[in-house]
Formats: sequence, C-alpha cells, structure tokens
Amino acid sequence: MNKYAVIVAAGSGIRMGGTLPKQFILVNNKPVLFYSLQAFLNAFSDIQIILVLPVDYMDMGQEIIDAYFDKEKFRIAAGGETRFQSVKNGLELVEEESIIFVHDGVRCLLTEKLIHRCYASAVETGTAIPVILSKDSVRIVNDEGNDAIDRNKVMLVQTPQTFHSKILLPAYQIDYKEKFTDEATVVEAYGLKVTLVEGEQNNIKITTPIDLLIAEKLINDRN
Amino acid sequence: MNKYAVIVAAGSGIRMGGTLPKQFILVNNKPVLFYSLQAFLNAFSDIQIILVLPVDYMDMGQEIIDAYFDKEKFRIAAGGETRFQSVKNGLELVEEESIIFVHDGVRCLLTEKLIHRCYASAVETGTAIPVILSKDSVRIVNDEGNDAIDRNKVMLVQTPQTFHSKILLPAYQIDYKEKFTDEATVVEAYGLKVTLVEGEQNNIKITTPIDLLIAEKLINDRN
Repeated sequence: MNKYAVIVAAGSGIRMGGTLPKQFILVNNKPVLFYSLQAFLNAFSDIQIILVLPVDYMDMGQEIIDAYFDKEKFRIAAGGETRFQSVKNGLELVEEESIIFVHDGVRCLLTEKLIHRCYASAVETGTAIPVILSKDSVRIVNDEGNDAIDRNKVMLVQTPQTFHSKILLPAYQIDYKEKFTDEATVVEAYGLKVTLVEGEQNNIKITTPIDLLIAEKLINDRN
Repeated sequence: MNKYAVIVAAGSGIRMGGTLPKQFILVNNKPVLFYSLQAFLNAFSDIQIILVLPVDYMDMGQEIIDAYFDKEKFRIAAGGETRFQSVKNGLELVEEESIIFVHDGVRCLLTEKLIHRCYASAVETGTAIPVILSKDSVRIVNDEGNDAIDRNKVMLVQTPQTFHSKILLPAYQIDYKEKFTDEATVVEAYGLKVTLVEGEQNNIKITTPIDLLIAEKLINDRN
C-alpha cells in the first residue's frame, strides 16, 4: 500500500518565549521537526512526506530537508488559518490510493512501533487514532456544575491520526466547523466511526521549556 | 482559621524500577516528600501536618521530619489499603474545626500560591478542587464506541483538595465505594457539590524517571 505522512508544522506559536516556532527549536543540535520526520522515514522506506509549513518559514523547512533527508521523498504545502485548512492543503498533494498519516510536527518523540501500529489498524479498519489514558482523575464541566467521570473511560488523543485515503480525502471536502480540532472529528462529521489504538506516554507535544528538556533526555537515552 | 495538611505518602509503588517508594526518592539530595511538606509549611506558619506513611516506612518518614522540620508541627498516621482508608486514618488526627488540605505526597512541585488559592476557596465555599485543562484532544469511551468531547469541558484533577472540616470529616464516615478515587468523589457521594479552582501545569505526580528529571529542573530553577 502507498503511504503518505502529512506532517503539520504550520504553527507559528512562540509559547517558549523565543521568536522561533516550536518545530524549529533545536534539541541536541537538530530541529524538533527533524526527529518527527526521521521517525516516519525510518518506519517505512517507501513513505512520502508532505510537510505543511507556515508561509513565513517555508525556506527554513526546505533547509531541514536539504540538510538531512532525500528531497525526492518530500513535498511542501503552505499552512492555512486553521489546522483543518493546513491539513486540507497537505492532502491536495496526495496523488494515489494510500494510507495517510497526519502528524503534529512538534510530537517528535513518537516511535516507529507506534507508526506501525497505526498503519496496521488503518489497513484493517480504515482508521487509527492513538490514545492514552489520563494519569489524573477527570471531571467534566456541565450546565449544573461538574461531574467526576471514570478515568478509565477518558482517552487523551495523540497523533499520527491515520486513515485510508478513501476515507480521509472525501471527509476533507465537507465544510469547516469549529469543532474540528483534529482529523478524527472531521471523519466523524463525515459520518464514520474511528478506531482507537494505544498511543505512547512519551508522545508529547513539545510546547514548553520543560517539554524540550524531556525531549533532550529521551533522545539522548536512545542514542 | 486552623489549618491541617494531610499529606498522603502511603503508596509503596515502585514504578521507577527501584525498590524505594516514589515519595522517598531524592531530588537534588532531598526526598520528593520534603518538597511537598516544605510548600505547606512555607505557605502558612500555623499549619499542622498529618503525614500518612506506609506501615513499612514510618521510620523513614520520621527521619525526614527530624532532619528538616519542626517536629511539633507533625503527626504521623499509618496508610490503609485504599487511598480512602489512608485519608480516613489521617483525618482521625484532626482535632478542631479547620480548613483541611489533602495532598498527594508525590506532587512536590506545587506552589504556595496554589495552596493559598485553595485555602481562600475553601474558606469561602467549603471546598476547593484544583484542576487544569487537558492539552490534548479528549474522547470518552461509551457503550457504542467513543465520542470526541469539547476539551474546554475536560478538567484534569490535582491536589491539594481542600475542605472545611465540617464537610470533610462527616463525609469520610460514609461507607467506602470503589469510585472514591479522590476526596472530591467522597464529598459528592456525601451529597455536596465541590468548587473547582485553577491548578498548575507543573503540579505533576512524580511517577516516572522523566517526572524526576522535570522536578530536578524546576527545583533548580527556583533556587
């Protein structure tokens, strides 16, 4: 089966306090984004990468590709105003029936094992959404106040959210709604159910200086 | 108002791979538990601490008190088979009308600010449950599969869970139920609502080597 990874690195968020978007910050001398890309390229030798970048950082993205990877495997798309639009722009570059991974560029600690698990589920069921249980107790806010909920029923959602192209491409033709916070919600709005697969505790979004420290430690431990 | 902090350090979990319970592991040469205790003692000069320890580690707990703190402020209780029973054992040492904090001994990164915020809410409303929003999208598993839920309605629950003694002491007289995962669920089963207050992103439970690393970094940054 053909394979595409749409790596969404379109954010220009600067929560770190600096001016560089998080996906470009260096961890052990390489950008966060490098590790995300490498994980997919290691997982499948025949995968094609669609890298969605902020309009102002397309050159910087291209430099990462040139420095570390085989540029034949890459295409670049421009980010949109919403995650939905960014992913949609990326999906326009998918050219054939395939399994499509959509992954946050700042989740640079995922393993090949997770990528393979998502692939297997998407081949079998059409979809794969990696999730983990919450370590904390959970409450849901409602009109009357808030209620405790069994924490074994609460799933924290990660990426790569993985789909057969026959599902994902038509799903992204529907109109944007504000509740589309990820690909799973789009596919559900299109009328389909999604399959949950086991995610990874360490598959965190790098958004704070503490997260960077974690990334550094885990990447060092692997080497 | 009198103040008690029931510090629940009764776990003998050894998820770190070692043999020492997590609350006794050293961070910058002092046990995790030291930092939890210090935060409450710094927050209020007139607070009394009830330290709930595993039966096999009562000496080790006493040594921490002797080494670092004024022992007049401490009482020790033995942990039970459940969190409910451990807290109940601790609450038996509360002697007067008071505001009672119940705190996980392994959440050693809380700030005095959070303790003061919980106190103010408990004085005003009788309860204070610190919560933070989930950074990830969230799904709830149900009989038909799973549903996305607005992440702004999902609260991850922390400690110190804080109560007026007139609420907490009678609540702990009800019979144990399996759904009692924290103090808030006990108080609700007793028939009362709880007030949510803003928690802290860094107020994590120290349960893995990565968490220890975070603790070390944050504690160093404060010094």
